[in-house]
Amino acid sequence: MAIITLTTDFGLKDHFVGILKGTIYKELPDVKIVDISHNVGPFNIQECAYILENAYKSFPEGTVHIVGVDAEPTPENQHIIVYVDGHYFITANNGVIGLIISEKKPEKVVQINIPNPLHGSFPVMDVFVQVACHIARGGTLEVVGRPFDQLKDLRESAPTVTDNGNKIIGSVIYIDNYGNVVTNIQRNFFEAYRKGRDFELTARNTKLHRIHNKYSDIINFDLEKNKRKGAGDLLALFNSANYIELAIYKSDLNTVGGASTLLGLDYRDTVTVNFI
Amino acid sequence: MAIITLTTDFGLKDHFVGILKGTIYKELPDVKIVDISHNVGPFNIQECAYILENAYKSFPEGTVHIVGVDAEPTPENQHIIVYVDGHYFITANNGVIGLIISEKKPEKVVQINIPNPLHGSFPVMDVFVQVACHIARGGTLEVVGRPFDQLKDLRESAPTVTDNGNKIIGSVIYIDNYGNVVTNIQRNFFEAYRKGRDFELTARNTKLHRIHNKYSDIINFDLEKNKRKGAGDLLALFNSANYIELAIYKSDLNTVGGASTLLGLDYRDTVTVNFI
Amino acid sequence: MAIITLTTDFGLKDHFVGILKGTIYKELPDVKIVDISHNVGPFNIQECAYILENAYKSFPEGTVHIVGVDAEPTPENQHIIVYVDGHYFITANNGVIGLIISEKKPEKVVQINIPNPLHGSFPVMDVFVQVACHIARGGTLEVVGRPFDQLKDLRESAPTVTDNGNKIIGSVIYIDNYGNVVTNIQRNFFEAYRKGRDFELTARNTKLHRIHNKYSDIINFDLEKNKRKGAGDLLALFNSANYIELAIYKSDLNTVGGASTLLGLDYRDTVTVNFI
Repeated sequence: MAIITLTTDFGLKDHFVGILKGTIYKELPDVKIVDISHNVGPFNIQECAYILENAYKSFPEGTVHIVGVDAEPTPENQHIIVYVDGHYFITANNGVIGLIISEKKPEKVVQINIPNPLHGSFPVMDVFVQVACHIARGGTLEVVGRPFDQLKDLRESAPTVTDNGNKIIGSVIYIDNYGNVVTNIQRNFFEAYRKGRDFELTARNTKLHRIHNKYSDIINFDLEKNKRKGAGDLLALFNSANYIELAIYKSDLNTVGGASTLLGLDYRDTVTVNFI
Repeated sequence: MAIITLTTDFGLKDHFVGILKGTIYKELPDVKIVDISHNVGPFNIQECAYILENAYKSFPEGTVHIVGVDAEPTPENQHIIVYVDGHYFITANNGVIGLIISEKKPEKVVQINIPNPLHGSFPVMDVFVQVACHIARGGTLEVVGRPFDQLKDLRESAPTVTDNGNKIIGSVIYIDNYGNVVTNIQRNFFEAYRKGRDFELTARNTKLHRIHNKYSDIINFDLEKNKRKGAGDLLALFNSANYIELAIYKSDLNTVGGASTLLGLDYRDTVTVNFI
Repeated sequence: MAIITLTTDFGLKDHFVGILKGTIYKELPDVKIVDISHNVGPFNIQECAYILENAYKSFPEGTVHIVGVDAEPTPENQHIIVYVDGHYFITANNGVIGLIISEKKPEKVVQINIPNPLHGSFPVMDVFVQVACHIARGGTLEVVGRPFDQLKDLRESAPTVTDNGNKIIGSVIYIDNYGNVVTNIQRNFFEAYRKGRDFELTARNTKLHRIHNKYSDIINFDLEKNKRKGAGDLLALFNSANYIELAIYKSDLNTVGGASTLLGLDYRDTVTVNFI
C-alpha cells in the first residue's frame, strides 16, 4: 500500500489539509496519508528542508512526499517531481529540494506537465495531489512530466573553516520544539577537523568543552540528586540528526525557556568551535 | 471503506480527540478517520462552518462528518443528523448547518433518538460517535432518529448592495493561517454586479483596483528581482474557496504580520467595493 | 489489526513524529497509528498521565501505547513495558505509569532488554518503536524484556480530608483547552464524604454550591434569553473523566479567558469543599 506524506505551512486550523486528504482518499481509498508537519513557518523553505530531510529517510522506498511550502508555480519556480534516494518529492523548484537532499544526486527530475491544469491559488490541491495519486498508483513520471534540467541547487550555508583548520564557524539552522538550537555543524565534519584534539565551542558568551551523545549524559548519577547537574543546565550534543545542538536539559520554552532564549540565539546566528 | 471526519474546537493537547478515535476504532476497525480541524475557536460556529463548508466537498459521497463545536444538547439545540449533497452531518441544531450548506436543501433531517443516551458533558463521544458508526456501517437514519422540521437556518450575513447596484458592502468572515482576510463576497456575486466595470475595493484606508487569481499574480516577472512587487505587498484575490480575500504576498503572521494585522481587519469588519 | 498510540511532548512542527510514523509503517504496513497528543508540556509527566489515563480506556484491548515524554533511559529511569488493564504501555520508569493506572495492579512489568540497542538522544525511535512493533505483531514481552520489580509508583497527590470528614482540600491537576480547571477530587470520593449534605466549594474568593453534570445545566431555559445565566458564567461540574472541574460556560481562552485565568488558578493550586 502506497504512502503519501504531507509537509506544508498550512497550519492545522484551516480547511486546506482536510481538502488534501479528502481529495486523495477519493482517488485512492487505500493509500496511507502521513502528516510530517503542517507547522512549517510560512514560506520558510529552510525549515521545511530541515524537517523533511530528517523525516523522509524513515519512510519505505517509493513513498511520495508532497512539499506544500511556497508551492505556487511562477516562471522561475516550475512544478517538478524529483526521484532521489528511492523517494519521490513533488515540489516547486524553489530550491528546497537541494536543501533536502544535499549531496545526493537525483535519479530523475521532471517538470510537471499535465493536461488542463488549474491555475488557481491552491496548486498543492490542483496539481500536486493529482500527480501524487498517479505515482502512488504506480504510474511513471514520464506520463505526468517532461525532462527538466534546471533544478535549483540551493544549499544550506556550510560551516566555514579558518585559521589553518583550527576554527569552525557555523550557524544556527533550526530551533526545535524544546527551544534547542541546531547548528549546521555535522558530526562527521566536526570530527574530520578535530582530529582528536580538545576544543572550545562558543555561542554568544557561553563556552562548552564537551559534546554529548544524549541529553542525560550531563548528569553524574553517582552524586546525590541535589549535587548533580540537571534540569536547567546547558549542554552540547550530537542530536539524532547528527548535527551539533545546544540544549537545556529538560527545558520548557513556555515556562523557563530553552537554549534559544537563554543564549539569545536565532536562525542564522553564529556558533564557533576552536580546536586547541 | 467508510470515512468519518472530525471538526471540533477540542484542540490537540487534551485527551478528547484520542477518545473519539479509540471509541470509533473499537466499533469499526476498518473505518478511516480524518481530522479536518480541531483548532476551531471555542464555540465559534462561524469559523467551524467556513472550514467545513470548504472541506467537506472534497470527500467522497457518503462521508460522515462529526461537528464537535457547541455540541451540548439543550432544549433549543437538539442533536440532529442532516443528509445533504451526498454527505452526512452529525451536529447540534445550533445553526452551524445553515452556514455550511448555505442555499442547498437538505434531503433528510432527523433528530437523534437513541435508546438510553448518556447525558454527560461529552456528547460528541456519548452520542455522535455512536451515530456516526451506525451510519458508516450502512445503517439508516430512521433507526437512530425521528423526523425533524425545525432546522435552524442561520446564514452568514450576505453582502449588502446599495447605491443602485454600484456598491457592495461586505464583511470579514475568516482570518486564515497566513493572516489573510477572507470576505463574504463571492466571485459570482461580485461579477454579477460588476458587469465588466472597473472598481475600487476599500479596506480601511487601503484601496485596490484588481482582483487576482493567484498570489504570485502581483509579480511582474519581466522586471529584475529588486524592481518587482513581492513579499510584503498587499493584493486582493479570489481564493480557492472563491471568496474575495485580502492577502500579503508571502506573509508570516509570527514575524512581519499578515493582511489582518497590517490592515487592522478582524472578523465582522467591513470591506466595500465601488463600481465606477 | 493492531493499534499503536503516540503520546509525546514532541510538538507538531519538528520531524520527530514523522520519523516515528515512517519507521512504524516500514515495519508494519497494516498497523493503525493514532496520535493521542504531541502537545504535552515538555517533560511534564503529570499532564501526560492525565491525558493518557483518560484516553487509553477508549481503545481496544491489546492496544500498544508509546509514552514519549521524559523517555531517556538513565540508571534511575529504566525502559520498561507495563501490561495492565488489557493495554501495553512502553515508557521510561519515571513515575508516569503510576499516575496513569492509579490503583490498578499491572499484570506484567518487564525491563526492555533488546540486543544492541542504540544509545542516542532519540530513544522513542531507537527503542520504543522497535518494541511496539514487536508487540503489535503478537510477540511476547519475554522476548524483549526481563522481569522487573522496581516500578516507580508516583501518585497524584490525593485530596486531603480534614475537620472530622467535613472538609476536602483538593488541588488543580490540569487546565484544558478551554481554560477549564480540573481538580483531583473525583466524584466517588466527593460523594463518599458528602453523604447527601449541602456544601460550599471554594476556589480563591469564589464560592459555589452546586456541581452540575453538563455545562449547559446552569442555564434556566424557562427564562427569556437575556435573563439567563449563559456564556461567561462560572460553574462546577463532574467532567467526562469524573473529576470536579471549574468551567466558564462557552469560554475562549484566547479572547475572554477561561476559568483558569478568571479565578487565577494554576496547576497545584488549592480548591476546598466544606460540607455543611
